[in-house]
Amino acid sequence: MARNKQVLVIGDSADYPERNAIAYTMGRFIAANGWVLVSGGRGGVMQAASRGASEGGGIALAILPSDSMDEANPFAAIIIPTGIGFARNYINVLAADVVVAIGGGTGTLCEIAYAWQAGKPIIACSMSGGWAEELAGRTLDYRRDDAIISAATIEEAQEQLAAILKTE
Amino acid sequence: MARNKQVLVIGDSADYPERNAIAYTMGRFIAANGWVLVSGGRGGVMQAASRGASEGGGIALAILPSDSMDEANPFAAIIIPTGIGFARNYINVLAADVVVAIGGGTGTLCEIAYAWQAGKPIIACSMSGGWAEELAGRTLDYRRDDAIISAATIEEAQEQLAAILKTE
Amino acid sequence: MARNKQVLVIGDSADYPERNAIAYTMGRFIAANGWVLVSGGRGGVMQAASRGASEGGGIALAILPSDSMDEANPFAAIIIPTGIGFARNYINVLAADVVVAIGGGTGTLCEIAYAWQAGKPIIACSMSGGWAEELAGRTLDYRRDDAIISAATIEEAQEQLAAILKTE
Amino acid sequence: MARNKQVLVIGDSADYPERNAIAYTMGRFIAANGWVLVSGGRGGVMQAASRGASEGGGIALAILPSDSMDEANPFAAIIIPTGIGFARNYINVLAADVVVAIGGGTGTLCEIAYAWQAGKPIIACSMSGGWAEELAGRTLDYRRDDAIISAATIEEAQEQLAAILKTE
Repeated sequence: MARNKQVLVIGDSADYPERNAIAYTMGRFIAANGWVLVSGGRGGVMQAASRGASEGGGIALAILPSDSMDEANPFAAIIIPTGIGFARNYINVLAADVVVAIGGGTGTLCEIAYAWQAGKPIIACSMSGGWAEELAGRTLDYRRDDAIISAATIEEAQEQLAAILKTE
Repeated sequence: MARNKQVLVIGDSADYPERNAIAYTMGRFIAANGWVLVSGGRGGVMQAASRGASEGGGIALAILPSDSMDEANPFAAIIIPTGIGFARNYINVLAADVVVAIGGGTGTLCEIAYAWQAGKPIIACSMSGGWAEELAGRTLDYRRDDAIISAATIEEAQEQLAAILKTE
Repeated sequence: MARNKQVLVIGDSADYPERNAIAYTMGRFIAANGWVLVSGGRGGVMQAASRGASEGGGIALAILPSDSMDEANPFAAIIIPTGIGFARNYINVLAADVVVAIGGGTGTLCEIAYAWQAGKPIIACSMSGGWAEELAGRTLDYRRDDAIISAATIEEAQEQLAAILKTE
Repeated sequence: MARNKQVLVIGDSADYPERNAIAYTMGRFIAANGWVLVSGGRGGVMQAASRGASEGGGIALAILPSDSMDEANPFAAIIIPTGIGFARNYINVLAADVVVAIGGGTGTLCEIAYAWQAGKPIIACSMSGGWAEELAGRTLDYRRDDAIISAATIEEAQEQLAAILKTE
């Protein structure tokens, strides 16, 4: 049985309206393609992407730091309360076929570093501020020859995502 | 949005045909009720329950020890490769609304202990051998006043599961 | 450089005076032999063993569930606040050359199950009540041919520990 | 009982002679002050710092990704094989009173991000290359008002470390 691909969307847990708008659109796009939306399950970008996936008829999976399902945002269809604190960042990344970064502080930075080490394709929205913007287009260390994919618009991020997941 | 309840089925990773048959039937029952089947994602009871859920039209979620999606059995629809080894037993349990134990060695014993501490309802199949049979009906320590629910038949396990999830 | 052997002492976090007395004596014995005392770093048996090691001039290492060093008992010389909740049980066991079980509820049961799977020698004090007493002398599943070593007195536990660590 | 302070040294697992030399000197300095050297327990900067601590008469604690003590470098006096893969980066940071960064790729980047979120003081050697040099002096996100402390020489790093640990 072919499983559906899983796309991790990472970014700020605080609310930045422009970043949330990008996340929402990406969540809908992910759902429309039949992929599973994976996120850290909390607020901000995570909630907006989950809402997009949910309203688009898809599945939003929430991988939480805490040991309680109550920590999840209301759009999560399936909840994994890991109970392992921010060590769960590592799991978020391993659960991804592709990672999409929107804005983001040090939580996002941590997940980008993990994604790099795990060999996951990373698409960073270069118009979204935060660590996603700062690292878009960069090679992070000697482990890989490629670079973080830089997407300057939502459309470009969607094209990159589709290119990766439809050709795998 | 109301999420669907999540049922963790635990038991042997090795193949015991009678235990696998119970797991398969439980997986189908879980899917038929619209619940999500959660398992450790590997062989034996985990695979049989996942197959039951999948063939019943439901979602089988696999929470793996390894860091690779390739470790999952072929019936997993959504895969979480935790990368944290058997520390993932803790996450399996936290992701459960109810735990159903079928047979089982020390991996299952570990998860029953975690489930007890996390306050999760536990249904143990007393006809299935292993640690599930040994602990069915027992109170494990001072932390709880109740006991592990003992189910002597598949029908009884299904009734107990339905009773818990439909009255919550 | 030869590192010193590491002995994990597991048991109740609540205070049972007789169990704590065993733990204290074992902690002193571990220190007197130059071994490192590893524990979960909290109260009860963990604190008593740590106190024994500390007062015996040894090193008590505390591996905590929480993300704060403040959770450790006052006898811990080195503190590892894992931040991963009770998933840290897995780490406790992996950090052990030998495991000694005294009394214990489901936390101890969980660690015994992990120790069995990790192939660690386990000495259970059969006079100490709890899961240590219940499982002393037993073979837990098909993974191993040996049994949990049963020690009926403190002296016997010390002899068994010395026999394992001095012949490795 | 007053425990000794714990200093985490992070940096490349690959060998860069200049970075290793800094790490070795820092390890000796940490030992000379009676602090515990914490590291990820592997090669490169981790091994050099552990060797410095060991040869300086101190304790080198190794917190490993793998489940086997054999992964540790030969200078580790106490070994914690976490078995949780690179999720152990989170534990490294929580086990630190202060973090010292020397060179470093994405593993180091991940740990700096965790250290920032955990509120730990971070000293980055600005003459050591890698992510330590790139982030020295920077504020990483809105969570903190301070910056990563930039040390341009080994002496400066030692002064900063002493200033933090002797005034706490």
